[in-house]
Amino acid sequence: MKGFTLWFTGLPGAGKSLLARELEGSLLERGMKVELLDGNDARRFLSPELGSAADDSDVHVRRLGYLCHVLTQNDVVAIATTTSPGRASREENRGRIGRFVEVYCRCDPQTLEGSGAAGERGDDGGDYEAPEKPEVIIDRGAETVAESAARVIRTLELLGYISKSPDTDYSDDDERQISDRLEDLGYL
Amino acid sequence: MKGFTLWFTGLPGAGKSLLARELEGSLLERGMKVELLDGNDARRFLSPELGSAADDSDVHVRRLGYLCHVLTQNDVVAIATTTSPGRASREENRGRIGRFVEVYCRCDPQTLEGSGAAGERGDDGGDYEAPEKPEVIIDRGAETVAESAARVIRTLELLGYISKSPDTDYSDDDERQISDRLEDLGYL
Repeated sequence: MKGFTLWFTGLPGAGKSLLARELEGSLLERGMKVELLDGNDARRFLSPELGSAADDSDVHVRRLGYLCHVLTQNDVVAIATTTSPGRASREENRGRIGRFVEVYCRCDPQTLEGSGAAGERGDDGGDYEAPEKPEVIIDRGAETVAESAARVIRTLELLGYISKSPDTDYSDDDERQISDRLEDLGYL
Repeated sequence: MKGFTLWFTGLPGAGKSLLARELEGSLLERGMKVELLDGNDARRFLSPELGSAADDSDVHVRRLGYLCHVLTQNDVVAIATTTSPGRASREENRGRIGRFVEVYCRCDPQTLEGSGAAGERGDDGGDYEAPEKPEVIIDRGAETVAESAARVIRTLELLGYISKSPDTDYSDDDERQISDRLEDLGYL
């Protein structure tokens, strides 16, 4: 078994944590070692000087990336959830870690306005730099958490990072969409 | 197999890194997963704002401790080498990590003066707070690196953190000294 990093990026309210916890459960069930680096602990110990602003800081994103790198090297699945608005620091982590799967939790600005989260960052998402080539794009609201999780799992299977499970139930259309995406990114 | 943390503390020039590398090799040979968190990388990514002063900072010691904690939880042997002069932050890490073996690399201030390292911190070791109950004490100069490494390995065997190897060659006197120490600390 080998490790990899699942990096969740997206604005607050886009559903990163919920999906990350769902995937943590699925991967643990498969007998993998999984470390979910979500929220308070990582902020408190890695970036106490930044507090909740850590999610917006390139320094914190690099620290968290270093932790994911060390875990990945030691055959652990590292799952990080952080806004990480800066494209350059995310790409740095990708380069260092190698086995890096970026999950972009996209959301309709109007949904965010409704949840009150948008106000924290400006109505249009402000300075968030969306990924150009994420391995997975999730649209909260367009599907259930279980469906989103299945899509990530199927992506990991196609990447060869986890072995195929007969439980992964997928329509031909969805399957084609995922493999087309990975092909476009140069994986398949 | 389960993880643990080997935490090397002591003034610059006390031989922490050399001994840590020797032990990394021994533990890798036993088929364990080992992550040596030594020097530049950990400083560069965890505490870029502190630079080489990181070794003296409680903030860096806690960050490094968090990394060791996460690795230990995932069955990796984490080896940290850092001056870590503050007793309280080391003890915090011990409490969080649990399977924590403190290796105190002690050195004669005169040796440091000769090496030029003492000047960096004052002739008497300055604000370094020596551990009160380290699992292992190493006196550089009193024994070879191989002998020091064997002592740490024997300590890990007696603690039950690694399995006994027929290769560990130890005199009855040394054996008694190590087990007496662990008994005093309440382990045996």
